[in-house]
Amino acid sequence: MRAIVVKPPKPGVEIKDVKIDEDKLSTIGLVKVKVLENGICGTDREIVSGKRTSVKPPAGKDELILGHEAIGVIEVGGYGLKEGELVMPINKRGCGKCLNCLVGRPDFCETGEGLVAGTKGLDGFMREYLYDDPKYLVKIPPEIKDIAILAQPLADIEKSIEAILITQKRVPIWTCDDSTFNCRKALVVGTGPTGILFSLVLRTYGFQVWIANRRELLENEVEILEESGIIFYNSAGGYENLVKNVGKFDLIIDTSGASASIIQHLVPLLQINGVLGLFGFPRYDAFSLDYKTVQDFVINNRIIIGLDNGQKPHFQQALIHLASWKSLWPKTTSKMITKIISINNEREVISSLREKLPGEIKVKIKWE
Amino acid sequence: MRAIVVKPPKPGVEIKDVKIDEDKLSTIGLVKVKVLENGICGTDREIVSGKRTSVKPPAGKDELILGHEAIGVIEVGGYGLKEGELVMPINKRGCGKCLNCLVGRPDFCETGEGLVAGTKGLDGFMREYLYDDPKYLVKIPPEIKDIAILAQPLADIEKSIEAILITQKRVPIWTCDDSTFNCRKALVVGTGPTGILFSLVLRTYGFQVWIANRRELLENEVEILEESGIIFYNSAGGYENLVKNVGKFDLIIDTSGASASIIQHLVPLLQINGVLGLFGFPRYDAFSLDYKTVQDFVINNRIIIGLDNGQKPHFQQALIHLASWKSLWPKTTSKMITKIISINNEREVISSLREKLPGEIKVKIKWE
Amino acid sequence: MRAIVVKPPKPGVEIKDVKIDEDKLSTIGLVKVKVLENGICGTDREIVSGKRTSVKPPAGKDELILGHEAIGVIEVGGYGLKEGELVMPINKRGCGKCLNCLVGRPDFCETGEGLVAGTKGLDGFMREYLYDDPKYLVKIPPEIKDIAILAQPLADIEKSIEAILITQKRVPIWTCDDSTFNCRKALVVGTGPTGILFSLVLRTYGFQVWIANRRELLENEVEILEESGIIFYNSAGGYENLVKNVGKFDLIIDTSGASASIIQHLVPLLQINGVLGLFGFPRYDAFSLDYKTVQDFVINNRIIIGLDNGQKPHFQQALIHLASWKSLWPKTTSKMITKIISINNEREVISSLREKLPGEIKVKIKWE
Amino acid sequence: MRAIVVKPPKPGVEIKDVKIDEDKLSTIGLVKVKVLENGICGTDREIVSGKRTSVKPPAGKDELILGHEAIGVIEVGGYGLKEGELVMPINKRGCGKCLNCLVGRPDFCETGEGLVAGTKGLDGFMREYLYDDPKYLVKIPPEIKDIAILAQPLADIEKSIEAILITQKRVPIWTCDDSTFNCRKALVVGTGPTGILFSLVLRTYGFQVWIANRRELLENEVEILEESGIIFYNSAGGYENLVKNVGKFDLIIDTSGASASIIQHLVPLLQINGVLGLFGFPRYDAFSLDYKTVQDFVINNRIIIGLDNGQKPHFQQALIHLASWKSLWPKTTSKMITKIISINNEREVISSLREKLPGEIKVKIKWE
Repeated sequence: MRAIVVKPPKPGVEIKDVKIDEDKLSTIGLVKVKVLENGICGTDREIVSGKRTSVKPPAGKDELILGHEAIGVIEVGGYGLKEGELVMPINKRGCGKCLNCLVGRPDFCETGEGLVAGTKGLDGFMREYLYDDPKYLVKIPPEIKDIAILAQPLADIEKSIEAILITQKRVPIWTCDDSTFNCRKALVVGTGPTGILFSLVLRTYGFQVWIANRRELLENEVEILEESGIIFYNSAGGYENLVKNVGKFDLIIDTSGASASIIQHLVPLLQINGVLGLFGFPRYDAFSLDYKTVQDFVINNRIIIGLDNGQKPHFQQALIHLASWKSLWPKTTSKMITKIISINNEREVISSLREKLPGEIKVKIKWE
Repeated sequence: MRAIVVKPPKPGVEIKDVKIDEDKLSTIGLVKVKVLENGICGTDREIVSGKRTSVKPPAGKDELILGHEAIGVIEVGGYGLKEGELVMPINKRGCGKCLNCLVGRPDFCETGEGLVAGTKGLDGFMREYLYDDPKYLVKIPPEIKDIAILAQPLADIEKSIEAILITQKRVPIWTCDDSTFNCRKALVVGTGPTGILFSLVLRTYGFQVWIANRRELLENEVEILEESGIIFYNSAGGYENLVKNVGKFDLIIDTSGASASIIQHLVPLLQINGVLGLFGFPRYDAFSLDYKTVQDFVINNRIIIGLDNGQKPHFQQALIHLASWKSLWPKTTSKMITKIISINNEREVISSLREKLPGEIKVKIKWE
Repeated sequence: MRAIVVKPPKPGVEIKDVKIDEDKLSTIGLVKVKVLENGICGTDREIVSGKRTSVKPPAGKDELILGHEAIGVIEVGGYGLKEGELVMPINKRGCGKCLNCLVGRPDFCETGEGLVAGTKGLDGFMREYLYDDPKYLVKIPPEIKDIAILAQPLADIEKSIEAILITQKRVPIWTCDDSTFNCRKALVVGTGPTGILFSLVLRTYGFQVWIANRRELLENEVEILEESGIIFYNSAGGYENLVKNVGKFDLIIDTSGASASIIQHLVPLLQINGVLGLFGFPRYDAFSLDYKTVQDFVINNRIIIGLDNGQKPHFQQALIHLASWKSLWPKTTSKMITKIISINNEREVISSLREKLPGEIKVKIKWE
Repeated sequence: MRAIVVKPPKPGVEIKDVKIDEDKLSTIGLVKVKVLENGICGTDREIVSGKRTSVKPPAGKDELILGHEAIGVIEVGGYGLKEGELVMPINKRGCGKCLNCLVGRPDFCETGEGLVAGTKGLDGFMREYLYDDPKYLVKIPPEIKDIAILAQPLADIEKSIEAILITQKRVPIWTCDDSTFNCRKALVVGTGPTGILFSLVLRTYGFQVWIANRRELLENEVEILEESGIIFYNSAGGYENLVKNVGKFDLIIDTSGASASIIQHLVPLLQINGVLGLFGFPRYDAFSLDYKTVQDFVINNRIIIGLDNGQKPHFQQALIHLASWKSLWPKTTSKMITKIISINNEREVISSLREKLPGEIKVKIKWE
C-alpha cells in the first residue's frame, strides 16, 4: 500500500509503496482500518528536516512510516467495532510491563520501553491501511468529523490539564469563592496550534486566559481567539506591561518550543501557589534562576511540571470538548483546519511536510 | 411585577402582581436581571399540589414566588456582567457560616441554614425581574440558549457524578484496561428528565448505560435515547432478565422518586465495588435489606450515596455538556424541550404547573 | 508439621500433623518462615463452630489449616528478606487477573477469585512453617513484637479509614477550621477488639470518639479506653440520650456483628455529609428504612459504605500506629493481649478456639 | 517578662525584660501558656547574624521576640484546654481573608499577609509566657515530651511529603506492585536536622532512602541514621557513583540550604515521573539547565516543587510519627536532642544562638 515514509536521521520524505504483512488480521484482536485523513504536526516536519534526533524506525528497519494524527474507517471490524465506524488511532503504546501501562496509561510508562507511532519504534499512520488493536482506537462521532483530527493534539493537552489540576489539589482551595476557576489567570506562551488549543481548553475550564507571542497576530488567528474571550499579548517587549496591568499568573503554559531561556522569564510571573507547565520541547539555549528566585519559588509553594502525551480517556475528553466548541464557538472551529490536501497531490503533500505556511493552524492530508 | 406565587402548605398557584423593594440595586453588589424563561420541574408541581411539606416561604412571609429554573438577560449590569448578557441564577445559596459555603459549595452546607430559591426560605425565579448577586449568576452562551434551561437540572446531575467519581477513588483502579470507563455498566432507574439527563452524562463519561422503567417508552423518548446509545429495559417484570443478559452493574442511579422499596431490588444488582446513587426523593413506603445482603454489601466494598444539588462549577460543566450534545446528538437535544408556553397564556401556565403531560420532558414558560 | 485444622462445614478443630510439599522452596520466589505465634479472631471461632458457611478449603481438599493472624521468623531467606527477620503474612491474596490485584490491592479484587488464607481456598497460618512469597510478607519491627500480632486486624481498619477519608473528599471541606479532624465526632458501635482498634485509630486521626455497647464495660476495657480519651456510652436504652447530649455523628462505624437491624437505628444518628461504615458481618435479622429517612439521607449527602480487608500498605501503617500507641498509650497497649497459650497446651488452644472468654481482647497461640 | 530579643536587620541578640499587655487574657478566646522550652533552628541564627533580610518585627515596632519552636504548659485554660496540659504553638498564622487561611491552611495563604511568629510580623516564642488562641496550640502528649520540640520542624516536613504525595497522584500508579512505596528510591541532600527528619519520615512511609553530604558523617550522625536503615552517600565527588550503583531517584529532596547550583546537579538524577522537592532556602549562586535537560524533564513527566511550612494537622501527624519512632528507633530518638541549656545560663544561650556546634542536631533552651 502507499505510505509516507522517512529514513531517519536522514532528512527527506517520500510517498511510496510499502509492504505490510497482509494476513495480520488473522492475529487475534485486530481490526482493519482504512485511513481517511492525516493531520500534519510540527513533529512531522522536524523529522522530515532531520532535526529530530530522537526519532527511531521499528526495530530492524531503517524506514519509518510517518504520522501520528489520523482518522480512519473500520473496514474489517470486530471486538466492539463495526464496519463503517470512524476511529482515531492512539499514538503512544504501552510497554506491557509497568503498572501504568497495564492500567492503560503509557503516558506514565516507567520502563521507557513504550513505542510511539510515527516517532519511536513504531510505524505511523500516514498510509492507506492500519491493522490495529481496538484498545488503541477511539471512536469518532461523525457529527464532528470535520474537526476531529484535532483530537490527537488536543488529547495531549487534556492530559496536561488533568495532571496540573491533580497537582494543584496540594493547595486546599485553588478554586475561587464560587468554587469555579473564574478568578484564576492563565498565561499561554505560543500561538501555534498547541497554544491555541491549550487556551481554548483553559477557557472551557473557566480560567481567564492570556495568550502571548513575540509578534502581532495574523487576521485568522485574531478571529479564532476572539469568540472564546482569549486575550492576546505581544511579548516582544517582555512581560512587564502584562504583569503591571493584569497581575501575576496562577498558571503559565509554555508551548513556544524555541529557546529554553524563556523559562527564566516566566518563573517570576507566577502567582503564589502557581504552576509553570512545560509543554513541548525547547530547541536550544538554557535557562538560569538565581537563589533569590529559588527562595521565592520555595516560599510560595510553586511548581514546574513537565507535560506530555494523552491516552484514550484524554482523546475521548478531547472529542467532547471539540463537540462543545462546535456549538459554542462556531467561528473558531470553522477556522482551525486551514488546508486540506489530497494525497494524490503529491507535490503539495511533500511541500506541506517540509514547511509551515503563515497562518496555518492545522493541515490535513486526505486519502482518496 | 408579575410573578407565579404559591402559599404553602396550601395547594394552588396563581399569577399575580408582587411588590419587590425597587431600590434593591442600590445594595452593593447586585445586578438586575429580566427573566426570559422558566423551566417547570416536578418539584414545582409537588409544591402546587400541596404535597411537598418541606417547602418554606421567606422568613416572615406566607407567600413564595415559585421556580428554580430560569434564564434571564442582564438589564443593569456591573461586577463583570454586561447589559444584554444571558444568565441563569443558581437556586441553592450559602449559609455564610460554614466552610463549605465559604468556599462556594452550599450543596454541602453543614449548618442546614442555606436557602433554596423557590423551595426553602427564598423567593424563586418565576417573575419578571431578579436583583441578584453575580456570584450566583451563571453566564449562558447564546449559541445554546434554546436548551440552556436544562443546565439547572443537569447541574445537580453533574455534581452527583462528580461526587460518585471521587467516592470511587477509594478503588485503586475503577477504570478499564484502557483507562476509560468504557467497560463499566450503569443502570439508571426512571425515564423522566432526570433519568434521561443522567443517562446522557454517563454516556458522555464513556459508561455503557441502561435505562429502566416499568412501562414501554413513548415514541419521543425512544428517539431521545437512540442517538446516544442508551439501552432501554422494561422493568415491569423485575430485573432478573436484565442481570441474566447483561450482568451486574458498577453504578446504579435511582431517579424514580416513587416507592422507597425499589432500593431493596437495586442493591443486589450491584457489581463488586459498585455504587448505588440515590437521587431525588422516594415518596412512600420503605425498603428492607436482610443480613445476608448486608454481608454481601460489606465484603464487596459497596456504597450507597445520597445525591443532591449542584453549584456554579456544575452549572458551567452542564453548559459544556449541553453544547457538546447539541453537536453530537442533535436529534436528542431538539426533542428535550417538549413545550413552550407564553406567560400570557395564563390558563395553560397554571395547568402545566398542575399536571405533567404524557411524553413531556421539559416545559418552558416564556416571559414576553 | 503440626497445624490447626478444620473440616468445614463440619464443626470442630484439631491439632494434627499435616504434609506440606517440602521442596516448595525450590519454587522461584519463596522464603521459609517459622511461625512464632498466631492470633485468634472471631472468624476462627465461627469456622470452628461450623456457623460460617462461606469458608472453603483449598481446591480439591476437604481440610483447611486455620488462622489468618501470624508472626514468624525467616528461616530460609532471599528476595530482600534475611534469616532472623520477623514477618507477618498477609491473608488476602490476589487473583492475578484484575487490575486492582495487579497493582497490589486484592482487597478490591474484581473477579472475586482472590483467595484468603484460613478462610477461602487457601491454607491458613496456624502451623509450624510457611513457604511464602515475600510480596505477601510484612516486616515486623522487633521493638513492638509483643503487640505486633494486632497489625493484622488493625490493617483492615487502616484500609477502612483510608476508604472513608477518600470517600469524604467529595465534601470540599470535611476538616475543621484548623484543618484537623478535631471537631469531628465519631461513634464506634461494639467494644470487641475491632471496635477498640477502630476507636484508637480514629483518635490517632484526631476525631472525638464515642464507643457504644449494650452492657457496661469490664474493668480492663475501661482501662484500655481511658488513656486515649475514648468515651463510653451504654446503648442498652437506645441512642437518644447520646444524641441529646453530644449531637449527631459525622462518622459511625458498626462493628457489632450481631443483628442487621442496628443499621436502622444508626442511620438517623448521622450528621449532614455523614458516613455510616459497615465493618464485619451482621449475623441475623434485617434492617428497614422508611422513605422519610431516605429523603433525609439524600438531601444531606450521606453515605453507607461496606468496609473490608487491608493489604500491605495498611499492614505497614498499622505497625506505625501500634508503635506510636506503645509510646503514647502504654497502659492501653499493655492490656490488649489478654492471654498467651502454648501450642503444647493443646486442651487450652482448642478451648480458646471454641469460646471467647469475658474480658478477652486478643489471645495469642505461641509455637515453641 | 523575660524574652530573647532581636532588632533586625541589625545583628545581635539579647535576653531582656519586655512588656506585654498583661490583660490580654480578657480578650475573648485566649489562654495563657507558660513556656517550658524552645528549640533553636538555623533560621534563628540567620536572624541573629543579620543575614536574613526578610525578617520583620511586629507592625510599628523595631524589636522582635525570637523563636518559633516552643513547648509550654497551660496556666490559664479554657476553650478545650485545661490547666497543666502541654501545648506547642504553631508559628504560621492566617491572613483571615483568603480561602486557604479560612480553612486552616495559612501555609497556602494567597494574600501573602499571613504572619509568622519569630520571623515575620509577629513576636516569637522565646519568652516566659504566651497569650494565645487555642486554634494555634497543639496538644503535646507528655509521654514524648523529651523529643516533642522536634514536632515543629517535623511539621514542615510532614506537609511537604503530603504535598508531594498529592502531586504524584497525577501518576496513575506511583506505588509498587504490592501497593507500598517499598520499591521507590529517595535521595535527601543535606544531613542537618531537616535532612535527618525528612529521611526518617520517608522511611516511615516505606521509601528506600539515601542521604547525602559532601563530608563524612560524624559518629552521632551515623548512629542516628543506622537504626532506620538510611544509607549515607558522600557526595564530595559528585553523584555519578551513586547513580551507577543505585540508579536514578523517584524523589529527591534538597535541604542543603547553600548554593542554588546544586539544583542543576540533582535534576538529571530524577527517575521517570520523578519529583525534585526544594525545601529551605539556597543562600547564593544560581542554577542553569540546558534545553536537552528540559526536554528530558518534559518527556519524563518530572516536577520541581517548592516546599514550605506545616499547619496544625501536620504538627499532629509529626507527634504521631515521633511517638512511633520512640518505639521503633529508640537509639535515634535518644540522640536527636544534642544539648539542653538553661535560660539562666545566659552566656551559653546567646552563644548557641550565634553558632552551631559540630554534631549538633537540636539544641533546646529550658525555661525554669
